[in-house]
Amino acid sequence: MLVKKFLCAPGPTAVPAEILNEMAKPLIHHRTPQFDAIVAENAELLKQVFKTKNPVVTFTSSGTGAMEASVTNFLSKGDKAIVVSAGKFGERFAEICTAYGVEVVELKADYGKDVKPAAVAEALKANPDTKAVYTEYSETSTAVAFDVKGIADVVRKTGALMIVDAITAVGAMEFEMDAWGVDVAVAGSQKSFMIPPGLSFLSVSEKGLKAMEKSTLPKYYFDIAGEIKANGKSTTAWTPAVTIMIGLNYALKMMISEGIDNVVKRHFIVAEAIRVGVQAIGLKLFADVPNVRPSDAVTAVRVPEGVDGKKIPGLMQDKFGVTVAGGQGSMAGNIFRLGSLGYMDKTDVIVQLQAMELALKELGYKFEAGKSVAAGQKYLMDNMKF
Amino acid sequence: MLVKKFLCAPGPTAVPAEILNEMAKPLIHHRTPQFDAIVAENAELLKQVFKTKNPVVTFTSSGTGAMEASVTNFLSKGDKAIVVSAGKFGERFAEICTAYGVEVVELKADYGKDVKPAAVAEALKANPDTKAVYTEYSETSTAVAFDVKGIADVVRKTGALMIVDAITAVGAMEFEMDAWGVDVAVAGSQKSFMIPPGLSFLSVSEKGLKAMEKSTLPKYYFDIAGEIKANGKSTTAWTPAVTIMIGLNYALKMMISEGIDNVVKRHFIVAEAIRVGVQAIGLKLFADVPNVRPSDAVTAVRVPEGVDGKKIPGLMQDKFGVTVAGGQGSMAGNIFRLGSLGYMDKTDVIVQLQAMELALKELGYKFEAGKSVAAGQKYLMDNMKF
Repeated sequence: MLVKKFLCAPGPTAVPAEILNEMAKPLIHHRTPQFDAIVAENAELLKQVFKTKNPVVTFTSSGTGAMEASVTNFLSKGDKAIVVSAGKFGERFAEICTAYGVEVVELKADYGKDVKPAAVAEALKANPDTKAVYTEYSETSTAVAFDVKGIADVVRKTGALMIVDAITAVGAMEFEMDAWGVDVAVAGSQKSFMIPPGLSFLSVSEKGLKAMEKSTLPKYYFDIAGEIKANGKSTTAWTPAVTIMIGLNYALKMMISEGIDNVVKRHFIVAEAIRVGVQAIGLKLFADVPNVRPSDAVTAVRVPEGVDGKKIPGLMQDKFGVTVAGGQGSMAGNIFRLGSLGYMDKTDVIVQLQAMELALKELGYKFEAGKSVAAGQKYLMDNMKF
Repeated sequence: MLVKKFLCAPGPTAVPAEILNEMAKPLIHHRTPQFDAIVAENAELLKQVFKTKNPVVTFTSSGTGAMEASVTNFLSKGDKAIVVSAGKFGERFAEICTAYGVEVVELKADYGKDVKPAAVAEALKANPDTKAVYTEYSETSTAVAFDVKGIADVVRKTGALMIVDAITAVGAMEFEMDAWGVDVAVAGSQKSFMIPPGLSFLSVSEKGLKAMEKSTLPKYYFDIAGEIKANGKSTTAWTPAVTIMIGLNYALKMMISEGIDNVVKRHFIVAEAIRVGVQAIGLKLFADVPNVRPSDAVTAVRVPEGVDGKKIPGLMQDKFGVTVAGGQGSMAGNIFRLGSLGYMDKTDVIVQLQAMELALKELGYKFEAGKSVAAGQKYLMDNMKF
C-alpha cells in the first residue's frame, strides 16, 4: 500500500514545495541586477533572523565551512581558544582549531550534558590569554541546548570572542546576536531555513570585525572581509549556489512573515509535543533534563532496553516513510533523533510518533498502542494557538 | 512583445528543464542508501569525464574552493610554485598561494595570449626546487586555451606537480587527466556539467596522492583525503548540496550517453560557429589567434571602435533576452563574451549572434544585417552532423 514520505531529520529538513518550484525556474546569472537584488535582500533579512545590525555573510558550503571561517578569520597561529563541547559538533571546533595551529583548552562534558557558564568563567580566569570561546548552541548530536546567553554574559566581560555554532539553533530557538553579546554565530541553509544544504551563514559583531583585522591565519575562499566587501556592492566574492540563494530569499520572506519569534515558538511547541509523546510510552530523553535544557530543533530518545536501536531509523524510513536520524559515533544504536526543525508543524509531531510506535512495536518494545500519539496531540491541543 | 530568455554565459550555464525538475523533487536525506548510491555513481561517472582511474572528489563550494584545495592539500609553507597566468583566473592561483605562504614564481603573459610549454620548461630549469606548476586550461576571462598537454609534457619529467584549473575546460575541450600526466585538475558544476553552481570537483593523480601525504598547509573543510575516505564508503565528509548532487547524477548520465568525445566535439563546433559568425561582420577575437588556441567554452570578442562596450551585455540581456558576459577587470568595456559551454547546441549559436547583431546595431556599429547569423548557420550546416 501507498506509504507517504516525510523528511523529519535535524537537517536536511523538508523543503516547502513552493520553494522547490521557485528553485526549479530557469537559472539566472549571478552577475545581474536581478540577482544582486536577491543578494542584498537576503543579507538584510538574515540580519533580522540573527537579530543583529552587523553583517551576516553567506558562503556556498556546508555549515562546517562557516565553522572553519569562524576560526581562520579571527585567530592567529598559537592563539589560545577555549572549546566548550559535549557532542560531535563541539568536538569539530577543536579539530578545526588544531588543524590551524590554535592552542585548544577543551572544556568537555559527557554526551547528554552541557557545560555551565560558571565553568567557562573559571576556565577564562585560569587562561586569561584566551582569544576566543567556541561553543555549541543546539548540539545536534545529543539534542542538548547549551546556555549560550549565560556563557556570552561571562565571555563579553573579557577580551575573548564569543563564537557560537548555532547551526541548528538560529531560527529554532531564541537567539539574540547583539543583545546577548555574541561575536560570531554560524548557521546552515538546511536547518530552520527550510532549504536544501549548500549555504552557510556567519554573523559577526563589531568586536569580531575588529579581531578580524588582527587575524593572520591563512584563508581565501572563506574570507569574511572579502564577502562583506562584495555584499556592500550587492554581490558575492565567488560564484554562489544561485538556486539555493533564490530558495533562501523565498524562505526568509516566509520566516519574516510568520515572525521570527513565532517561528521560534513553533519550534518549541513541536519539540515539546514530541518530548511529551515519547515519554508517554516510557521512553527517556538522552538530554540530561532537568540539569540541561533540551534542544527544540531535535529530540534524542534513548533506545529502550531489549530493542535493537540501530534498526529504528531504517525501519521508520523504509517501512513507515518517515526519515529521522540515528545516533552518531558512540551514540549509534543507543539513541534515535526526531526532528522539529524547519518546515514543521503539528502534523510532523504525530507523523513521527506514529512511525516511531510502529517501528518500536515491530522491534518488540511493549507499550500501549497510540499512547504517544495521543499525548503529543493533547499537548498540541492545549498549547498551540490555531 | 514576448522576449524569450536564454542564459549563454560561460557559467552559470542554462540547466535542462528535466534536471531542474529532478532537483525540485522532495528533498532526501544525505545519509541514506538512496543518496549513497548517488554519491558512489557520481564519483565513478566523474572519472569517465576526467578520463582518469584515480579519485575525483566533489566539494560543496564554487570552483574557487577546489582551487584552494589544489594548493592547501599539496604544498607546505615556503614551498615554491610556478604560476602560469594570462588572465583573472590564473592570477587567482597566485593569490591563493600567497595567502598560504607559498612562494610564487609568476610566469605571466598579456591578456589574450598564453604561456608556452618552452617558457615553463625554462622556468623549471631556473627553479629546480619547484613543487608545483599551476596553470589555466580554458582561461575564462580571456577565452584563451592554454596548451595544457604541452605543459604537462614538460612538468611530468620533473618532480613538480602539474595542477590545472580546468573549470571551464573539462567536458568542453579534449582533456585526458591520466594520459597527459596531469596531477590535479579542478572543475565546477555550473560549467559543462549543465547544473547550477554549488559543487566543485577535484581529480588527483597517484603522484598527487603521494604529495598529499607530505603537505602540511592547514586545511579542514577542503581536506581531499577526508573526502576520498568518505567516498570509499559511498558518502561525503560534510553535508553536501543534496539537490545539486542529484542534478549532477542526471547530468553526468546525459553526458556519458552523448559520449564525452561527442560532448567535446559539440563544444568545438558551437564555439567555432560563433567565432566564424562574429568575424563575418568584421569583429575581432580577443584571443591572439593564431598564436594561441581559442577556448571552446567561451568566445571573447573585441568591442569595435566607436561602440560603448559596457552596454553590450546589458542590452543583449535586458532588451533581447540573451545573457552573455562582459569583460572582467581591465577588460571591462573592451570585450564581450559569448558562451558555448554546457547545455548548448546549434540554436545557441544563432540566438546569440542574432541578439549581438541587434545590440551592435543599436549601439551604432555598421554591418550587413544578418551576415553573422548566416555565417554561423553556414558553418553549422557544413560541420555539424545531424
